[in-house]
Amino acid sequence: MRRRLVRVFDARAVTDSVGEVMPQTEVFDEPLALACGQILPRWTISYETYGRPAAGMRNAVLVCHALSGSQHAAGRRADAPENIGWWDNFIGPGKPLDTDYFFVISPNNLGGCHGSTGPACAHPDGKPYGSRFPPVAVEDWVRAQEIFAARLGVERFAAVVGGSLGGMQALRWAMDFPDKVGAAVVIAAAAKLSAINIGFNDIARQAIMRDPDFCGGDYYECGRYPHRGLGVARMLGHITYLSDAHMASRFGREKREDAGMFQVESYLRHQANKFSGKFDANTYLLMTRALDAFDPAAEFGGDLARAFAAIRAKILLASFSSDWRFSPARSEELARALLRAQKEVSYLEISSQEGHDSFLLANRQYHGAVAAFMGGLRGAAGAS
Amino acid sequence: MRRRLVRVFDARAVTDSVGEVMPQTEVFDEPLALACGQILPRWTISYETYGRPAAGMRNAVLVCHALSGSQHAAGRRADAPENIGWWDNFIGPGKPLDTDYFFVISPNNLGGCHGSTGPACAHPDGKPYGSRFPPVAVEDWVRAQEIFAARLGVERFAAVVGGSLGGMQALRWAMDFPDKVGAAVVIAAAAKLSAINIGFNDIARQAIMRDPDFCGGDYYECGRYPHRGLGVARMLGHITYLSDAHMASRFGREKREDAGMFQVESYLRHQANKFSGKFDANTYLLMTRALDAFDPAAEFGGDLARAFAAIRAKILLASFSSDWRFSPARSEELARALLRAQKEVSYLEISSQEGHDSFLLANRQYHGAVAAFMGGLRGAAGAS
Repeated sequence: MRRRLVRVFDARAVTDSVGEVMPQTEVFDEPLALACGQILPRWTISYETYGRPAAGMRNAVLVCHALSGSQHAAGRRADAPENIGWWDNFIGPGKPLDTDYFFVISPNNLGGCHGSTGPACAHPDGKPYGSRFPPVAVEDWVRAQEIFAARLGVERFAAVVGGSLGGMQALRWAMDFPDKVGAAVVIAAAAKLSAINIGFNDIARQAIMRDPDFCGGDYYECGRYPHRGLGVARMLGHITYLSDAHMASRFGREKREDAGMFQVESYLRHQANKFSGKFDANTYLLMTRALDAFDPAAEFGGDLARAFAAIRAKILLASFSSDWRFSPARSEELARALLRAQKEVSYLEISSQEGHDSFLLANRQYHGAVAAFMGGLRGAAGAS
Repeated sequence: MRRRLVRVFDARAVTDSVGEVMPQTEVFDEPLALACGQILPRWTISYETYGRPAAGMRNAVLVCHALSGSQHAAGRRADAPENIGWWDNFIGPGKPLDTDYFFVISPNNLGGCHGSTGPACAHPDGKPYGSRFPPVAVEDWVRAQEIFAARLGVERFAAVVGGSLGGMQALRWAMDFPDKVGAAVVIAAAAKLSAINIGFNDIARQAIMRDPDFCGGDYYECGRYPHRGLGVARMLGHITYLSDAHMASRFGREKREDAGMFQVESYLRHQANKFSGKFDANTYLLMTRALDAFDPAAEFGGDLARAFAAIRAKILLASFSSDWRFSPARSEELARALLRAQKEVSYLEISSQEGHDSFLLANRQYHGAVAAFMGGLRGAAGAS
């Protein structure tokens, strides 16, 4: 591991500094009991790693992905060089999750469609799970990740880090495995979804389920695929990730000369087509349902501070001023509850125009804050 | 017409005080040239009226409906007593548009699906217009309404009144026929749609057009109907009419005991089914496109004050604090431009929790302001 006294932080660091990566796989034959009461008899986690492990894996950092993410968080896929990880500006040498110091592990969630066991995978009967795939909760992901981490030899993460649904996983890690999380970085998250959040998610689900090619979720065997409905779901998700001001400055009311349509229409349709060609519709349903169901305070009579009582991790919370999907008020609610529970918490509202998507973008204040927080963890992680 | 010195205003006036109503129809054989360059050779306007005309129709008030409205704005349909008009709390004796003084005329827009000529009607060749129905602009509606008004004997409206897309029509009336509009009441409107507004509208259109039963817009002859896509479009429209706070207080995260789904999901699906069973999908497309295209300043180099130069009507603008679809800032933009153009304008931002939908609801401050404004017009309208 390189050592430097001074590192000049640059939020606009060259992408691809992690280099070539390939997903790896761990298969688990012990059954996993899910929160819903069902059991996954055999399951697989697909993952990538960035950086090098220190002695005893004390520098391990877990990255949790959001709704439409995957294990491919950084670097370029060796088999598809144009495929850059979704958080490449955040993970790598000299970046907020600095791979000169930390060993970053990024798994695909159970129920996903990028290699971990999900609805498109074979049920023990040999046919795809499809509509039979059980509902998965945030706590299931965390439990599966804990078993997976033990397999890799990680007894304790220096930090668990995630944005949006990934932030909820980081929070749940700190709650459920207090001795196994040194710190949690919880970005653009919320203690639970509001009615309007759930409403948007359900409209996306309806768009998918009403597509005749959805076939009740068992489209794999019909040779069909609900790409139209998934496209509408993606457009809807996408628009809620952006801000009015950002869309106004990016698209305004400009029209495409060739097609006569507004630029924003063309952009959203392009996003829809790009996404619906590569993402599994059942995974989209399952992830949005996990989001809707997340509500850790519910087990504690709605008292978030009591839900957080067991936490021992240091917590960094960050929100973005223009995020109307999970607004700063939602992060403040988390911060207040953590303070009431007497936890060590830092909270930062970052001024940003790009809405919920800001958590994926390079922003000097945001990246600087995470870099500083992570820097403070190096000593304990044996990573300095 | 009754006369009273004092009327006690009650925003919670009993509904149905207009009584039984039935739509009437006017057929026009003179071709209507549309802004798009196409022509409607023969067209029909279906409408309702409330109250009684004064001498020379000087007390006539035009009500313009919004995206999913119809001519049935007040009273109960004689043939369907459960069918109360969409603005019944606003129109009637003792209500803001007081039918003891004003003669209220409410037409269905061209392109609509409630009796005026629209995509489901017969083309001159005898088959439904379907995909052949021309695009209609706000200025086309206004021009058609002017011809329609002349047919009824109205030379000048005491006021033209509308909310949302209806407010845009009221504004356009004041611009295009300055001598024929005494006042315009423009509620929860905007000078033009923003990129995010257009984006939401296009997602709704995509949901409809991607439904295989849409048949390219010619579903009438296939015996099919894109009810799934129209349902998704309606859910999406509906959620943007409400506010986060309102939905939180109304639904929270409550679940339905019988179905296991969140109340908000059940509510939105009910709205979808109710709407998609009675509204024409082509009309929904056409109305949202007219909304997207509305931009009166575009003809004046983006200068809204110049666009408003010809206006002679008194203008009342109203917006609602919780409306994020057409926020108060959008009405303020109109107010500032009208002031720059030295017009007589009053602007009121009403504190309300119910989002864009507030314009349809009884709110004491809102109804009181419109009632006071309309009261000031009675003398000139020969209605006092």
